Amino acid sequence: MKLFMFMSNAKDMNLLEHTLLNIQSINTDSGREAGKRFKEFAIPQGSLGRLEELATFYASVRGIPGREIRHKVVFVMAGDHGVAEEGVSSFPQEVTCQMVKNFLSGGAAINVLAHHAGARVVVVDCGVAGPVESAIVHGATAGLKIKKIGHGTGNIAHGPAMTRKEAIKALEVGIETLEEELERGDVELVATGDMGIANTTPSTAILVSITGVGVEEVVGRGTGIGSDGLARKAEVVKRAIEVNRPDPQDPLDVLAKTGGYEIGAIAGLCLGASRHRLPVLLDGFISTAGALLACALEPKVRGYLMASHLSAERGHALMLQKLGLKPILDLDMRLGEGTGAVLAMPLVEASVKLLLEMATFSQAGVSRADGRGGS
Amino acid sequence: MKLFMFMSNAKDMNLLEHTLLNIQSINTDSGREAGKRFKEFAIPQGSLGRLEELATFYASVRGIPGREIRHKVVFVMAGDHGVAEEGVSSFPQEVTCQMVKNFLSGGAAINVLAHHAGARVVVVDCGVAGPVESAIVHGATAGLKIKKIGHGTGNIAHGPAMTRKEAIKALEVGIETLEEELERGDVELVATGDMGIANTTPSTAILVSITGVGVEEVVGRGTGIGSDGLARKAEVVKRAIEVNRPDPQDPLDVLAKTGGYEIGAIAGLCLGASRHRLPVLLDGFISTAGALLACALEPKVRGYLMASHLSAERGHALMLQKLGLKPILDLDMRLGEGTGAVLAMPLVEASVKLLLEMATFSQAGVSRADGRGGS
Repeated sequence: MKLFMFMSNAKDMNLLEHTLLNIQSINTDSGREAGKRFKEFAIPQGSLGRLEELATFYASVRGIPGREIRHKVVFVMAGDHGVAEEGVSSFPQEVTCQMVKNFLSGGAAINVLAHHAGARVVVVDCGVAGPVESAIVHGATAGLKIKKIGHGTGNIAHGPAMTRKEAIKALEVGIETLEEELERGDVELVATGDMGIANTTPSTAILVSITGVGVEEVVGRGTGIGSDGLARKAEVVKRAIEVNRPDPQDPLDVLAKTGGYEIGAIAGLCLGASRHRLPVLLDGFISTAGALLACALEPKVRGYLMASHLSAERGHALMLQKLGLKPILDLDMRLGEGTGAVLAMPLVEASVKLLLEMATFSQAGVSRADGRGGS
Repeated sequence: MKLFMFMSNAKDMNLLEHTLLNIQSINTDSGREAGKRFKEFAIPQGSLGRLEELATFYASVRGIPGREIRHKVVFVMAGDHGVAEEGVSSFPQEVTCQMVKNFLSGGAAINVLAHHAGARVVVVDCGVAGPVESAIVHGATAGLKIKKIGHGTGNIAHGPAMTRKEAIKALEVGIETLEEELERGDVELVATGDMGIANTTPSTAILVSITGVGVEEVVGRGTGIGSDGLARKAEVVKRAIEVNRPDPQDPLDVLAKTGGYEIGAIAGLCLGASRHRLPVLLDGFISTAGALLACALEPKVRGYLMASHLSAERGHALMLQKLGLKPILDLDMRLGEGTGAVLAMPLVEASVKLLLEMATFSQAGVSRADGRGGS
């Protein structure tokens, strides 16, 4: 069984193994039932377009909902990257830690947008290089969980990002974080987010490793590097793959050799959410790299995922295509943090409300297209 | 002066004339000021993509806002069309009146979505053929205004939709409705909506009349007609233009000869909102036909308009292109009612909240990309 291929240590694998074994396929019957309801509503058939698709998706994951979506959480996974020292980002590494503090004091875009969407923000330090803890005293507005796997990954241009054991740990951080939230109360919609200076570089390496696409076809400008930086970044991704030779058939190997702590945690979040039958709104490029790993570990995960938006980061469209996901929004964003994911939340909620609240042709006394009368 | 070209009757023209004379250009200085603020926020420059553009737009229309958007209204303009007798829609004409009643009892998609967005629904009977008044006794959840210009327009395949005087009245219904809402209280964001069986046919005729595009290039399936219906619809639009010969240089002539009461009212709403410096979220194909007329009457109106979504109706993309508008959403919707417009409201609101609430690099103590330190 594929699952056991990467079990180097049975004790460490416990949570991951348990999670993978308990992921079930989505329930397409509930989805079909939702689709039938839309056919009864007093509208031209199919005229709600992708809203019908979103409601149908939600029903496939959760069953026909009994009420509107209320409990939404965005998980912002943070981590640092040794590869930052190669000059692949326009920001210095210290910004990861500074931004985590900004999340905790409520001044970042994700705070504003999550509050607007009515979503809780949970920030997880998966491996920030700096001392994130020092921020807690300032009176945090967002929950912080410290689950450091290391103080930044290794530089993938010279060796692996982390050990295989740490890669398992990163996945488990994602699962664990979700399960802690579930113990705390209801969660009905999960959004992913990331913070990590230089993390488009490992995300690109993951995309290249798993799909075999050429580096030049997908490498992008991240936070805004110039042409020189872009050429350097492409070289770094190529070197990371040459030096580490990640096995495309072994997602844990790809994560360990060319990934990042927060990317692993996002993958884990996707696994955990699938295991608990929760829908996941993926943010942009980094989140989708995490989703690629999660789906490689367990293809059933795919059914639990929605793509919130198409990022302006160059390789994102291909990533989504590989997963067969069509983004809900296309707003030329490339910020990460989970900003695209929480922006799409009201659309998913709206679709569920339509499913729950609309009048049918017969209830509304509206004549049908084919001439059958209303009530 | 162009304005007086269509003033056949000075007394009747009063409200329209007054409105047109008082429409001023948007304030690009405020827009630039908003853009500057975004450059100070602790994010990679431009990474919020079109959210920055939306906030900048809002500031250009309203000045830099002092607080978040609170008062939102969607105006659903309803009217019937004589051309329905040509078999250009898959629904019978009675559905317009039935749907207005559905709006008033709260069971339609626009009710669900407007409530979700926190927007008031104002339904205006601009010229429904049936007795809409009878719905009021049922205890309406949405406001209804009866401003009937006629009981359905004339069949444009045989003659004009309405007189020039009625066309002016239709525009004034839109202006008047907005001004009544303003007397009632604050309005900070206006959305347009429509209901009218067969109204993609006059909307197509308006598009063809104003832009000169070929009928076959833009005619679409509306609520879902088949191939025979589509061919018939194309013939009807061609005949409407041959029979009526609308003057493309005279928007009032186009409205009178090939338009509709609710389309005129939507155009009037765009004029009124511009005159009162209010931003307008356009819904789909019918609303954008109204906007085409409004911009032809007064090009400054264009600055007050946003396109909420790209409709699945075939000619919509071209309409938006002619107006230079880029849709916010693309969800394959084609329902009308204002559904796309209210769906985009949370995105506009989110953009304004970002402008008002985000921390700058220096406030957040975040290092800049170019190495200048934070606080």
